[in-house]
Amino acid sequence: MSSSTGTTGTTTVITNIATLVTNDPSLGDTSPLGLVRDAAVVIEGDRVVWTGESSKAPATDNRVDAGGRAVLPGFVDSHSHLVFAGDRTEEFNARMSGRGYTAGGIRTTVAATRAATDEELEANLTRFLSEALRQGTTTFETKSGYGLTVADEARALRLAAAHTDEVTYLGAHIVSPDYADDPAGYVALVTGEMLDACAPHARWIDVFCEKGAFDGDQARAILTAGRAKGLHPRIHANQLSYGPGVQLAVELDAASADHCTHLTDADVDALASGDTVATLLPGAEFSTRAEWPNARRLLDAGVTVALSTDCNPGSSFTSSVPFCIALAVRDMRMTPDEAVWSATAGGAAALRRTDVGRVTPGAYADLTLLDAPSHVHLAYRPGVPLVSGVWRRGVRVV
Amino acid sequence: MSSSTGTTGTTTVITNIATLVTNDPSLGDTSPLGLVRDAAVVIEGDRVVWTGESSKAPATDNRVDAGGRAVLPGFVDSHSHLVFAGDRTEEFNARMSGRGYTAGGIRTTVAATRAATDEELEANLTRFLSEALRQGTTTFETKSGYGLTVADEARALRLAAAHTDEVTYLGAHIVSPDYADDPAGYVALVTGEMLDACAPHARWIDVFCEKGAFDGDQARAILTAGRAKGLHPRIHANQLSYGPGVQLAVELDAASADHCTHLTDADVDALASGDTVATLLPGAEFSTRAEWPNARRLLDAGVTVALSTDCNPGSSFTSSVPFCIALAVRDMRMTPDEAVWSATAGGAAALRRTDVGRVTPGAYADLTLLDAPSHVHLAYRPGVPLVSGVWRRGVRVV
Ligand SMILES: [Zn+2]
Ligand SMILES: [Zn+2]
Repeated sequence: MSSSTGTTGTTTVITNIATLVTNDPSLGDTSPLGLVRDAAVVIEGDRVVWTGESSKAPATDNRVDAGGRAVLPGFVDSHSHLVFAGDRTEEFNARMSGRGYTAGGIRTTVAATRAATDEELEANLTRFLSEALRQGTTTFETKSGYGLTVADEARALRLAAAHTDEVTYLGAHIVSPDYADDPAGYVALVTGEMLDACAPHARWIDVFCEKGAFDGDQARAILTAGRAKGLHPRIHANQLSYGPGVQLAVELDAASADHCTHLTDADVDALASGDTVATLLPGAEFSTRAEWPNARRLLDAGVTVALSTDCNPGSSFTSSVPFCIALAVRDMRMTPDEAVWSATAGGAAALRRTDVGRVTPGAYADLTLLDAPSHVHLAYRPGVPLVSGVWRRGVRVV
Repeated sequence: MSSSTGTTGTTTVITNIATLVTNDPSLGDTSPLGLVRDAAVVIEGDRVVWTGESSKAPATDNRVDAGGRAVLPGFVDSHSHLVFAGDRTEEFNARMSGRGYTAGGIRTTVAATRAATDEELEANLTRFLSEALRQGTTTFETKSGYGLTVADEARALRLAAAHTDEVTYLGAHIVSPDYADDPAGYVALVTGEMLDACAPHARWIDVFCEKGAFDGDQARAILTAGRAKGLHPRIHANQLSYGPGVQLAVELDAASADHCTHLTDADVDALASGDTVATLLPGAEFSTRAEWPNARRLLDAGVTVALSTDCNPGSSFTSSVPFCIALAVRDMRMTPDEAVWSATAGGAAALRRTDVGRVTPGAYADLTLLDAPSHVHLAYRPGVPLVSGVWRRGVRVV
């Protein structure tokens, strides 16, 4: 297969695609995936300009033969924590080996992140981004939350903003150890000076609404303050226990309620009635041996579900969306079609984007080519690195 | 990092290895993994000739800097079914989507395999082998069992034998559909004319000892006949239900009892008392949503455990040993150290080999370089393609 580099004005056609996932039912079969068999995609500059059957593709100078393989939208990973230093190998090893470990937990990462230079943090970030890109992720969101001081949070967001538009201020990840005896003082900082310093670098504001982190009232105060500064809310909600996070998310029209492991019927009803996406993060349940969220229940209630990695060094150190798809199918009872939709169009919905997560005229030309004839193989062939080509903004990068 | 090609007489040293897994306690720490920190390995021709601390490594012309990453023995995948044609995407998709499907199951693959040309089968085989090699598998066993005629079984083994020494005759995979009304006749074929045609191409004989396949008496007759022709036994045992397979394996000194999901205390005692390895295949439980084998129980009883993929298009279409390691840790309660040992030295034990599965002077120079500082990352970073270098028989191939 030949490779091509898209630049503005250049037109490229990818032909001989056995299965194309468009996520637009009007373009393909009537399923949500909008599948087109024996398909072609035409890219012009950084955009898709045409999709359809190979036999009807317009002629162009640059031709790429997909070799009877599958093409889908690049993955949209709408939840990751990639601005950090250090790792937590020993903590993971002890947990999985049944050994006691006086875990510093997230505080270990906070200490390492504060101690790191800008260059070290950025090198780490770009390493994980290129690792994710090789696995087909073309859009990613990432958060602060390992600085927990005004300067360290602002630095994390500034570094992240150089690499993605989807930057989330998570000063309210945990109460900073510096404020262990004064959580109200920390909330005041997060909604005051820290917010002022962070808002210029971020699109989103997030809070970890959980026992031991921030309660419903604190979360509401934090998200409301962020909204007043032009940030849009999203919430870590109902991960470890039942709580107010999901309903608060819907009330505040958060783009996403993330985790959603412990849900009452009222929580599910709230999600079904609003525009808040439920983002499921099976890497976290995998790596902590926790209970699986019930994706089936959400989907059957009509909730929009996204699937993301939660990539972070403590509870889910995977950057692999394909791995999350395989888990979602095996352990969260999503169908392969649903899981692929949630990892592409679902992630885009969780970021309120329509220009990514689909292969439709006008969308960014963000494409993943699999070494397999269909998208189902992402679940059928778990753990196998099937991504054999990636285009981002029309440029072939893998 | 520079790359090097080993040829007989050439000496190469790989230095700056943060963590080296030797699987020889006498070479490293006292753990079964024989870990050496800040290590080096010297390769001469196709063999390892020296391992130890980097600072003590002998000088050689060819130097490879591992960049502070981990090196471990190439994986030994002691159980796969790679001589087949077609795939079973629709069957998998229907099963995982909760849809009815009149599954042809294994018979679908038998029909496709019989219909394929030698060239098609070999192209498929080499495609999966290179896929596995890119994921760090340097030794693999593979089986017949999708031909079920004298000619088709012999053909499968002949094709496999061109690619590996570890070839297993599995005419007794299921009773051939051609003998649906005469299972005794099929056993007579498997132990007679088919065995005569197959024995010259194989090292091992295997039988699927399970309700609906072959019972204990049939399995004993098949394995005993094979042994008389110079083949050594291994058994698909106790996968779907309790049964006689495991105890028969120990009685016949089979190299391995594979699956071991449903075990009585007597089965565990038998394994602990003999030289038969228990080979666990978590890809099968993952892909069929079946109950996990209890690795912890086996290890605590002193049984030698191997970890392999069972790569096949029906019940476990993964070629990824790293994925199996992550599952073994998460769902079978192996520690990361145990899982890595079982996927290397354990697989070697299941093939009664001591020249692979360890990085010791005299062993084949089969090495896997991870893009991570330790072997623990294979479980800590599930789904991430961490294998960034592979040497097989002293030659760098990835
Ligand atoms: Zn998170
Ligand atoms: Zn098998």
